[in-house]
Amino acid sequence: MYIPKIYDEKDKKKITGIIKDNPFGILVAVENGIPVASHLLFELVEKGNDLFLYSHLAKANQMQSLLKLDLSFLAIFQGASSYITPSWYEKMNVPTWNYISVHCYGKAKKIDNHDEEYQLLNRLVNRFEMKYDYKYKLEDLPDDYVKDEMKGLTSFIIKIDKIEAAFKLSQNRNEKDLNNIISHLEKSDDNNEKMIAKEMKAKRDL
Amino acid sequence: MYIPKIYDEKDKKKITGIIKDNPFGILVAVENGIPVASHLLFELVEKGNDLFLYSHLAKANQMQSLLKLDLSFLAIFQGASSYITPSWYEKMNVPTWNYISVHCYGKAKKIDNHDEEYQLLNRLVNRFEMKYDYKYKLEDLPDDYVKDEMKGLTSFIIKIDKIEAAFKLSQNRNEKDLNNIISHLEKSDDNNEKMIAKEMKAKRDL
Repeated sequence: MYIPKIYDEKDKKKITGIIKDNPFGILVAVENGIPVASHLLFELVEKGNDLFLYSHLAKANQMQSLLKLDLSFLAIFQGASSYITPSWYEKMNVPTWNYISVHCYGKAKKIDNHDEEYQLLNRLVNRFEMKYDYKYKLEDLPDDYVKDEMKGLTSFIIKIDKIEAAFKLSQNRNEKDLNNIISHLEKSDDNNEKMIAKEMKAKRDL
Repeated sequence: MYIPKIYDEKDKKKITGIIKDNPFGILVAVENGIPVASHLLFELVEKGNDLFLYSHLAKANQMQSLLKLDLSFLAIFQGASSYITPSWYEKMNVPTWNYISVHCYGKAKKIDNHDEEYQLLNRLVNRFEMKYDYKYKLEDLPDDYVKDEMKGLTSFIIKIDKIEAAFKLSQNRNEKDLNNIISHLEKSDDNNEKMIAKEMKAKRDL
């Protein structure tokens, strides 16, 4: 990804935070020279210095066949984004778009072990059921039912071998402009714009 | 994109609506067999039955060189998305994720005509400045300044030759489940979940 140095985020905790907070990502691969993509849920797991992405897709998804090949997959995660009007700047300028995006590259490997696959799905379910007081649990379902449902899925793991993170948050503006942009975005009724203001503040206050 | 028939949206107005409402998309291409992507702003233009995407990127962006080649680009646009807990269903089931996504494929062509490029940028600026009462206008800037800024950009047009739209909105649920999901999501304080409820209602009430 093209990332001017000033927007190139290297802080591992911030980068992994974006993936964890925005787990519904896009898996991209190349099939017969053409880019193909699926919208999937990902779990990021850190083991020592290594980063892994776990995910699953429907067996009927054509991308499933690509998992067998020795391909480089790209997983894209997007944070907030917002239009920035130059009317908030002191001096004449052109508009821009602030955004946060993380690109992860790596080879994918199918998970054929039933228990490992079950644990992966169980962690995913619990993560999202937390919001609903864990009223629903995979372990409350009959074993045969879960096994049957799992037959329709292919789970996989990607060992990330390259990670790129663009945190484009007006780092090229002076402090007065920066404060002005933040205070305008904070007043927005758009959650996305509020989130960009929050990220800009975190960056400014480093 | 893998789209089960029940989620395969064919209504052109709905599909183009997603692109227009979510213009900050992802341009994907293949470079040396590897997928590469940039986060860009797009304008959708309809001419008769044809659909075109206008956009621009920084000249320093490596993807710029790909615009010269006879490649198939993929532009991805995302609508709302939300986790759906099976605790809202009448009968036992597994969780899912509702989402809307549009994939556009086509060849890209650089726009070398200065006036055409200016008009494209001017339309983009006006579109987003509408929200701020058009306080900022490209035409208020000195010509030389705009020309200089434009030297840093490459504008391009993609004629869409294939469009795929997944509107995954619980169409596989019965009416009672559907109403229950919608009423829960409507009460959420997450705009994204509220938006999915709105899209589900639009789909249900067809």
